[in-house]
Amino acid sequence: MMTAAEGDGARSLTLRTPYLLFLGDAPSEAHAKTAFGIRDWARPACLAQMRLPGCQVSLGLPELTPESAADAGAGSFVIGVAPAGGRIPESWAPILRRAAEAGLDVVSGMHTPLAEIAGLEEVSRRTGAALVNVRAPVNRFEVGTGRRRTGKRLLTVGTDCALGKKYTALALARELRNRGVEATFRATGQTGIMIVGSGIAIDAVIADFVAGAAEALSPDAPAGHWDVIEGQGSLFHPAYAAVTLGLLHGSQPDVLVLCHDPTRTHIKSFPDFRTPDLRVAADRYLEAARLTNPGVRLAGISLNTSSFDAAGRERVLAETQDRLDVPCFDPLKTSLGDVLRAVLAP
Amino acid sequence: MMTAAEGDGARSLTLRTPYLLFLGDAPSEAHAKTAFGIRDWARPACLAQMRLPGCQVSLGLPELTPESAADAGAGSFVIGVAPAGGRIPESWAPILRRAAEAGLDVVSGMHTPLAEIAGLEEVSRRTGAALVNVRAPVNRFEVGTGRRRTGKRLLTVGTDCALGKKYTALALARELRNRGVEATFRATGQTGIMIVGSGIAIDAVIADFVAGAAEALSPDAPAGHWDVIEGQGSLFHPAYAAVTLGLLHGSQPDVLVLCHDPTRTHIKSFPDFRTPDLRVAADRYLEAARLTNPGVRLAGISLNTSSFDAAGRERVLAETQDRLDVPCFDPLKTSLGDVLRAVLAP
Repeated sequence: MMTAAEGDGARSLTLRTPYLLFLGDAPSEAHAKTAFGIRDWARPACLAQMRLPGCQVSLGLPELTPESAADAGAGSFVIGVAPAGGRIPESWAPILRRAAEAGLDVVSGMHTPLAEIAGLEEVSRRTGAALVNVRAPVNRFEVGTGRRRTGKRLLTVGTDCALGKKYTALALARELRNRGVEATFRATGQTGIMIVGSGIAIDAVIADFVAGAAEALSPDAPAGHWDVIEGQGSLFHPAYAAVTLGLLHGSQPDVLVLCHDPTRTHIKSFPDFRTPDLRVAADRYLEAARLTNPGVRLAGISLNTSSFDAAGRERVLAETQDRLDVPCFDPLKTSLGDVLRAVLAP
Repeated sequence: MMTAAEGDGARSLTLRTPYLLFLGDAPSEAHAKTAFGIRDWARPACLAQMRLPGCQVSLGLPELTPESAADAGAGSFVIGVAPAGGRIPESWAPILRRAAEAGLDVVSGMHTPLAEIAGLEEVSRRTGAALVNVRAPVNRFEVGTGRRRTGKRLLTVGTDCALGKKYTALALARELRNRGVEATFRATGQTGIMIVGSGIAIDAVIADFVAGAAEALSPDAPAGHWDVIEGQGSLFHPAYAAVTLGLLHGSQPDVLVLCHDPTRTHIKSFPDFRTPDLRVAADRYLEAARLTNPGVRLAGISLNTSSFDAAGRERVLAETQDRLDVPCFDPLKTSLGDVLRAVLAP
């Protein structure tokens, strides 16, 4: 069943693993980014894949039907593909009903509520399969308290949306654990939630409770433990800055890592809004974060250098590091040693 | 019926006037602040009052039953009193059913959804009376676009909650109209909505859509028209800053008026959070507002001087005006001439 645990500070969604990842008839990896993200960052949670005729991509996982996946112990049927428009096509209804019939929870990050799929609720009521809309509004949080919590927190922030805040946080959490530091990735968006199986879609929370939801997402923890929190939006985004600020205040980060795409000249899909200067962005994030954690520090800059060649990457990282005077890295391409030393510096 | 108009940029709530104002058994004016606010700022919308035995206050309006108010043309039965806890007592159920039975819309800003009052929905379905939860989450807005709109906009902002942002905006809008300037008060909270009969409870909007809701609240207008927008929360509030920032970005104000209570040393109910210095607060609001309106100006400071005597009031206003170098006023006590000249300055 869908669990939205009461108490224990964490009213976040928890998904049932392992997953049968549904790729639909995805024509390219770009359409199945969610499934690939889950495979890359949560390989142990991935039991199998299921594809429709015409699907052009593969995760390299065993191909199973909902019934055989359920027999093999799968917990959830996860929609890992996004058709244009973010809506679930009518033609998937029989597949989704089969999954629920087999007892698998159905997990979706699409705009279409699963309850709108013909017959799906009826099946799920009968079999006990949960219908989990990861993107669905949740409004069962308290308002923020501003109370400081035990344990350490890192939040990724950005000059814009969609430039690496999630992958930066995932990479930092993994590398902290690799170095023997207790660390938990805290998901705040649908793909992040599917990757780690729990979290809060923070942009779907009622505005009054955003800071409170962020507080609930990373409760008191042991002194040496790090919550590595996935940032959302940007303070410089004309539509989403409210989400960003509420998450920042509620997270009370000890450390910020600022994510940036050096090739992006304006806010994605908002050509009239220029991306901010990195120094300005760092100062504004620190200024805002000091409200709930006066000791907050900038530990590093995460650059998305996917469009650079090796020489260009090295150059832009070095230039940025010189200018901002903090470790500068690409979480998918370079070492995390320097930034982690800065994170862990007393 | 409850109207949440589609299109025309304004998916805001619209209430049916005139009102029968319900005072319950309010022991003091403080408990019936909503009713008094409506009477003081929307006298023409107030047809009558209704009180229960034991009520200690009066609005000085005719006393009518729901039936006689309906006969006299009332549109809505408005709960203008807030019992401790913000919940509707069981004992009011018969009164609320009588109002709906008489065909009056029932309007509530309480936490208890009206649908939870025994038998009320059944009556309202039968008579066509709307049950309007002014505080209820609404989530039918688009994300913000950042597109500049025609007409002028003033937003009241504050160093904290509950220190005069609504009354400042109401007073400025009224005085603009008195001087022949077209001006509309735009309500963003429940009492403001009840006062003017329409608006958006902005803190109840899903976080992703706060800026978009603020854009919808003050659509394109004639060049000389001013929307005077009721601010919410504070950028310096550990729980509510997200609401404040989304409203600020979506409003795209040309002019800010900063509201402050000089006696308040910390954020209300948050003793660990000091109220910010006025200069710092002004700078931070202007900085944030420039994202969507680079030409934004600070036109004045509104001080809540209700706890000062005449000499003390004059002194604190003069000192603040000297220090901030903008007109400084108390909307309920002093002239608005200087601040309005600053607002209208080209």
